[in-house]
Amino acid sequence: MTMEKKAWQKILRYLKIRDKARTDILEDILPQDIAEKITELEPEEQRKVFGLLNDEEAALILGELEPSEQAHIISAMDDKKSAAILHHMPSDDIADLLGGLENPKVQSILKHMHKEDVAEVTGLLKYPTDSAGGLMTTEFIAFKETTKVKQALSRLRELAPSAETVYYLYTVDEDDRLVGVTSLRELIASSDEETLGQIMRTNVLSVNAEIDQEEVANIVQKYDLLALPVVDNDEKLLGIVTVDDIMDVIEEETTEDIYHLVGTSEREGKSLVHAGVLATSKARLPWLIVCLLGGLISGFVIDSYEDTLANVIALASFIPVIMDMGGNVGSQSSTVFVRGVATGEILPKDMFQYFFKDMKVGLIMGSVCGVSVAGAAALWQANPMLGLVVGLAMFCTVALAATIGTLIPIFFIKLGVDPAVTAGPFVTTIKDVTGLMIYFYIAMTFMEYL
Amino acid sequence: MTMEKKAWQKILRYLKIRDKARTDILEDILPQDIAEKITELEPEEQRKVFGLLNDEEAALILGELEPSEQAHIISAMDDKKSAAILHHMPSDDIADLLGGLENPKVQSILKHMHKEDVAEVTGLLKYPTDSAGGLMTTEFIAFKETTKVKQALSRLRELAPSAETVYYLYTVDEDDRLVGVTSLRELIASSDEETLGQIMRTNVLSVNAEIDQEEVANIVQKYDLLALPVVDNDEKLLGIVTVDDIMDVIEEETTEDIYHLVGTSEREGKSLVHAGVLATSKARLPWLIVCLLGGLISGFVIDSYEDTLANVIALASFIPVIMDMGGNVGSQSSTVFVRGVATGEILPKDMFQYFFKDMKVGLIMGSVCGVSVAGAAALWQANPMLGLVVGLAMFCTVALAATIGTLIPIFFIKLGVDPAVTAGPFVTTIKDVTGLMIYFYIAMTFMEYL
Repeated sequence: MTMEKKAWQKILRYLKIRDKARTDILEDILPQDIAEKITELEPEEQRKVFGLLNDEEAALILGELEPSEQAHIISAMDDKKSAAILHHMPSDDIADLLGGLENPKVQSILKHMHKEDVAEVTGLLKYPTDSAGGLMTTEFIAFKETTKVKQALSRLRELAPSAETVYYLYTVDEDDRLVGVTSLRELIASSDEETLGQIMRTNVLSVNAEIDQEEVANIVQKYDLLALPVVDNDEKLLGIVTVDDIMDVIEEETTEDIYHLVGTSEREGKSLVHAGVLATSKARLPWLIVCLLGGLISGFVIDSYEDTLANVIALASFIPVIMDMGGNVGSQSSTVFVRGVATGEILPKDMFQYFFKDMKVGLIMGSVCGVSVAGAAALWQANPMLGLVVGLAMFCTVALAATIGTLIPIFFIKLGVDPAVTAGPFVTTIKDVTGLMIYFYIAMTFMEYL
Repeated sequence: MTMEKKAWQKILRYLKIRDKARTDILEDILPQDIAEKITELEPEEQRKVFGLLNDEEAALILGELEPSEQAHIISAMDDKKSAAILHHMPSDDIADLLGGLENPKVQSILKHMHKEDVAEVTGLLKYPTDSAGGLMTTEFIAFKETTKVKQALSRLRELAPSAETVYYLYTVDEDDRLVGVTSLRELIASSDEETLGQIMRTNVLSVNAEIDQEEVANIVQKYDLLALPVVDNDEKLLGIVTVDDIMDVIEEETTEDIYHLVGTSEREGKSLVHAGVLATSKARLPWLIVCLLGGLISGFVIDSYEDTLANVIALASFIPVIMDMGGNVGSQSSTVFVRGVATGEILPKDMFQYFFKDMKVGLIMGSVCGVSVAGAAALWQANPMLGLVVGLAMFCTVALAATIGTLIPIFFIKLGVDPAVTAGPFVTTIKDVTGLMIYFYIAMTFMEYL
């Protein structure tokens, strides 16, 4: 979907000439496409392009860039110019952008901004970025209950260009407390003389500004909303969170879940991609150290069967395949289960039913893998009994790994701990230790035939 | 967020009495909440509740249930009643629901449905469920270019209750080809006498019905759309995909990505949670067999150093920790990289820059893990030289695993293969083999001091 070189040069030409009949270049090209192109340019060129844009165009395009790109561009720009561009952005985007800059730069930009903008933005900056308050914008539309449909529609016509969304009209009482909501769809389907108080829904969904963004995303997704109002402790309407921001939250939360699967933490809700070398190492090392301990415990198991191993040194050759397979089956089981719980496909009442199903799956996969590896081992080492030992150990390891892979997350859920965070390291260590114990125990049992 | 027992009993009471002043029970309680409650009930109770609802209410609630729950409820219902309920659902939801039923049941329900409903739904059923055509609904709003704002608004007032979304008005020519789009926001901000042809955007984004749902989701997400029109090969407008369906697609695609991480395939875009025991085994076994081969290759490495191992049997005790750590670091690196590419945080031009950063991270983590395990090994086996060997091998393995973990996905991307699908098994096998080779090579080198 990247813009072709020719199309881009045409845009630059338009911007340079600023033909009076064509100053509205952004009406025909979507700002997202220009933003995408800009990320591919060198810093020097980026500055040139922004020099050609007027403040409103620059705001539109800046709003579509990743926070790190925004910080680059704003840092290289004159503070007065930055403030003028920010004036055209919605308050939540301004807050996000300033949140990514160094503090002295923020202070110096705030000095040049309109007083009302500063008040709105500093109001937003006090909420954590991953809370409802951190996500919301203050550009919402609210009326009193007594407003007539006709009045609301004509006022909407004026507000439409600057509001973040016009698709929900909120109704507030004298103290700005949220009392109802009317969708634009309901508004246009109503007759002119009705009041908002008559047509509004009174059981309006809202969230407190302190609520975590994951919960906000869940509500928007569950109820198929285009926007969700944010209120303070007194139910006073503070802002709205819109569905486009929610899609970004879902992406961010998914990254977090995927990171947890491999035992990596994020840095304050940010991905590791743009983190420095030391910060990345710090985020990844804790689980590695836990796993290092787990690996040493597995070593103890081997150590305690040293005599068995010394007698039949060929047993060592099958340690990797037993460990790998136990690990893979265990992480398959725990991953499918944890994801199923996260998406609501596995309800609490169905957890144990799912557990028994996965146990059966483990038995089937264990049989297939056991027979395969038994044959391979028997042929390779020209020792059918060794094949039997390895195959039997493989069957038990795979079947047990599937069981452990679902049982441990269930255990954590019952304890009230998020299984995504904790199941990984435990599953790894427990399946390694049990797999190796089974293997050497079976080998020891059959020792005289090996 | 589950409904309290008391609230639920109140709803049931209302439904039973059907007080004439309160037949509009669903205006105050959201259908999603009733749907959630219904999934917790036993089949017998579910039937009772649906018996109390009128067709329109039943349609609203049915639309919010998971496909497997829908199939349960519809299968137990009289076909005529089912058809009457489906009449009140949007065409995409009907198609999805019928797609989850056995064919004879579908045929028998279709017999009782309105002719127009049947035509629309069978039209949709011919598209794969994971294509734009499979996602779209036919309940969109389209006008001709000559329609005036005033006319469009008054027509919208009539259409609002039945259209899937009223927030975009599409403009079509004589042959129903898509030529423009006007948002409801732009419509209400325009004056009554303007025509849609004057105010519409002509560079309207659209997708062909055959396009994969992942691409549809990417476009909706990138351009912050509430709906995206779907056209056929002649640009004829067929339907629209709405943002609430896109959020479900994102969830589904994420599940797919997460499954790929652990080498599990989905069944035709469905998660494994509701698949049978055999189907689940079949989806999970292929990668397990690949890994089994990988594990055997690692075994060959150990086998070829049998003499070294037989001399210092204590070396075997550190095989697990070397393998585990290489595996963890490798999957951390490849997962963070593959996710970064998927979300667009790592652009093609930055791949190698990221690779070098991750190499440095690998060196730091390798140093920390190497020193830790060297100390542990030296103390445990009371053999400082063995500690040195294990520590040195750990450093090399971790540093190399980080390098391989990003290099292999880069290699697959350059080949044009989705790295999410393929990187896992390769990273596992290569890091195992190299880790063990390094370990035994270092051990052999220092053999005389051990």
